[in-house]
Amino acid sequence: MSEFDPRAIRALVFDVFGTVVDWRASIVREGEALGAAKGWQVDWPAFADTWRAGYQPAMQRARSGEIAWTSVDGLHRTILDSLIPRFGLEGLDEVERAHLNLVWHRLDAWPDAVAGLMRLKSRFVISTLSNGNIALLVNMAKRAALPWDCVLSAEIMRHYKPDPEVYQGAAQLLGIERHELLMVAAHPGDLRGAQRAGLPTALVRRPLEYGPNPTGAPPPDALPDDRFDLVASDFVDLAQRLRA
Amino acid sequence: MSEFDPRAIRALVFDVFGTVVDWRASIVREGEALGAAKGWQVDWPAFADTWRAGYQPAMQRARSGEIAWTSVDGLHRTILDSLIPRFGLEGLDEVERAHLNLVWHRLDAWPDAVAGLMRLKSRFVISTLSNGNIALLVNMAKRAALPWDCVLSAEIMRHYKPDPEVYQGAAQLLGIERHELLMVAAHPGDLRGAQRAGLPTALVRRPLEYGPNPTGAPPPDALPDDRFDLVASDFVDLAQRLRA
Repeated sequence: MSEFDPRAIRALVFDVFGTVVDWRASIVREGEALGAAKGWQVDWPAFADTWRAGYQPAMQRARSGEIAWTSVDGLHRTILDSLIPRFGLEGLDEVERAHLNLVWHRLDAWPDAVAGLMRLKSRFVISTLSNGNIALLVNMAKRAALPWDCVLSAEIMRHYKPDPEVYQGAAQLLGIERHELLMVAAHPGDLRGAQRAGLPTALVRRPLEYGPNPTGAPPPDALPDDRFDLVASDFVDLAQRLRA
Repeated sequence: MSEFDPRAIRALVFDVFGTVVDWRASIVREGEALGAAKGWQVDWPAFADTWRAGYQPAMQRARSGEIAWTSVDGLHRTILDSLIPRFGLEGLDEVERAHLNLVWHRLDAWPDAVAGLMRLKSRFVISTLSNGNIALLVNMAKRAALPWDCVLSAEIMRHYKPDPEVYQGAAQLLGIERHELLMVAAHPGDLRGAQRAGLPTALVRRPLEYGPNPTGAPPPDALPDDRFDLVASDFVDLAQRLRA
């Protein structure tokens, strides 16, 4: 890894699910409202964790060519359909299932996210770089007031992170060199992908991503020799470290 | 053309050069500052008009396959290189030429544009849909405070407007039906392309696009049987017509 020079940074791209928005609490919130309306008892935290756990394997099937390229809305729906019987949601009709699937468009930001992004935006170009599709990211940003300069998605590159095409494509579309583009994520695996593609990296810790007492969390993704250029406790801290 | 229902509209996509920004006055402004600094006499309005006039033929060469796909930054540079001797700009070094080429990233918005876009954004998703590349559109928006929800470009579709792939691709990326996506432009040819692709259309009149006494303007683009769903005098008028 070459020496990190924060003065070289011209733009920041952000992972979204877990890094910018609290997908788990948002899904639990909507689920509990749905369950109350229907009079159903559902383990919504387990539902959220299981839905999320299906995401990486679904992307891998698209990546390997086992299934055709599918937007994340489509992957989420396939996983949701498999969860319906498991969580006793057979009473949802098609309109309700389609609406529930789009809960990923209605996720709440972490409390520091908008304030930190506003500061970072004053100095840098800020963009999403998510596996989520453009429509999902645009609807989410509008609802949660995320002030992106640009909405970039793996959908444009037709590759999912951590494939190098996604990170390289973002630098190319933003018209800058890869060493000028900082990848921000809560997930070491995403940042390692960015490093392999030649981008500097910032880890933002999101210890509550899987809730206060994580039971459904995946195994820790960090590796002993992970070294990221910046480590921040939240987006306001990241802005301070970048003098924004 | 089917009946236009403004209540069906969920998102608006905007042509940019001439529709959102006043490319001609902006290039003349930068050119005059450059000429003053160098002590050169240059016909900057003619320079701007000639640069712009090279744009459609350059896109046509890319569209026909005569040249490989090229971003608008690249097309602009090829045209600029041909203008250098014609307008007596041989004294510009490579750094100055590269900087001048990016004047298209530094165009000023029409006076009504930001106010109209803010109103429209309160009710609709608003996005660019320009042949300009993403980097150009992002840099322009940041400088001119254009409050896009999303930055879409022909660069993503690898087709230039008015090819139908551009308009259809925008609806697909925004996750909506084509009849829900309103194309806004000052140029009838762009709107006819959108109509052929199934989008409703709004013409915004920009009578000053080629200056108060247009001499270098292309022939009028309107055809006798052009019928657009909305015709507005500016973006604030457009917002009123859409009850935003």
